[in-house]
Amino acid sequence: MKSDLVSIEKLIASFQKLGGVGYKTAQRYAYKVIELDSEDVTEFAQNLLNVKNDVHYCKVCGNFCEGEKCDICSTRQSDVICVVEEPKDVMALEKIQSNNFVYHVLHGLISPLKGKGPDDIRIKELLDRVKTGCVKEVILATNPNVEGEATAMYLAGILKPLNIKCTRLAQGVSLGTDIEYADEITLERAITSRVEL
Amino acid sequence: MKSDLVSIEKLIASFQKLGGVGYKTAQRYAYKVIELDSEDVTEFAQNLLNVKNDVHYCKVCGNFCEGEKCDICSTRQSDVICVVEEPKDVMALEKIQSNNFVYHVLHGLISPLKGKGPDDIRIKELLDRVKTGCVKEVILATNPNVEGEATAMYLAGILKPLNIKCTRLAQGVSLGTDIEYADEITLERAITSRVEL
Repeated sequence: MKSDLVSIEKLIASFQKLGGVGYKTAQRYAYKVIELDSEDVTEFAQNLLNVKNDVHYCKVCGNFCEGEKCDICSTRQSDVICVVEEPKDVMALEKIQSNNFVYHVLHGLISPLKGKGPDDIRIKELLDRVKTGCVKEVILATNPNVEGEATAMYLAGILKPLNIKCTRLAQGVSLGTDIEYADEITLERAITSRVEL
Repeated sequence: MKSDLVSIEKLIASFQKLGGVGYKTAQRYAYKVIELDSEDVTEFAQNLLNVKNDVHYCKVCGNFCEGEKCDICSTRQSDVICVVEEPKDVMALEKIQSNNFVYHVLHGLISPLKGKGPDDIRIKELLDRVKTGCVKEVILATNPNVEGEATAMYLAGILKPLNIKCTRLAQGVSLGTDIEYADEITLERAITSRVEL
């Protein structure tokens, strides 16, 4: 049921562009906006514009940043590059306090089904970084799914001949998992990579 | 894990004000904003401001509207007023095509626990409308929960002495319900109000 309110309908349409937001949720958000203080709404609108204007990709690693280089690239020196799919993955890995590696964000994965080849993601930029000679190891931290594995394999195929150590995140059962409900591929990998106590 | 990006963090904070949006979801929305076209973001910001500026309460029924009166109050004449809690409820009831009643939005319910008394919701405005003498029936369509029932009872107590017919939405099992899983209060009401075929 669409309302007759032009400006609400337009705002609902805007909220729906955020991805994963259906009409009902967008409507709830739009109604909440009406109830918010004027100041909050003005600030919200300004924050939207600021993010779009100020945030861009770090010219080194491809992570989001507001200056020329992101904070990690400006402050951390390392000969280990951790390759991830999205800026969100950087944030997740940065939860580990003792990180001593820098990142490289691919902004996608190789996916022939989606028409994405090696030239469509930031592989060239990674090779440029590696070819400076200061990189010893590349951690291929793409997600453990079909596209993530394929991209990691492809990158390992290019990097190994350049004498770069390629590693991948360990796979196994996660903390708190019920072995009863773990899928068989995870279990198989956990068994294969079992460690001695 | 907070990022070092000032403008993203501010936008995340704005999204969290929408209610029911946690940090993770707000972060997903903020990242999506970075990926949107500049035009879409500018429009989004403008839509936010427009809604806040243009939308206010209809001076008759209290529903959201952009002019002085809402579309329903300007076009529909009726001696039946349907009393609801929120503008969302109006939208839900308007799905019924053959409505021949007008609305009155209370913008809340009587709830002593939340410190809301009869003077905090739009009861006075309802009485003013009723006292014009053109109202024959008031449908008390507040939600069938504790506060909704209490508010309906309270309103019925005021309206009946004014010779106004007070009705409440029928209660029973909804279409598609599995009787096996229906709660006992609903079943009891469905039995009590059973109809002859």
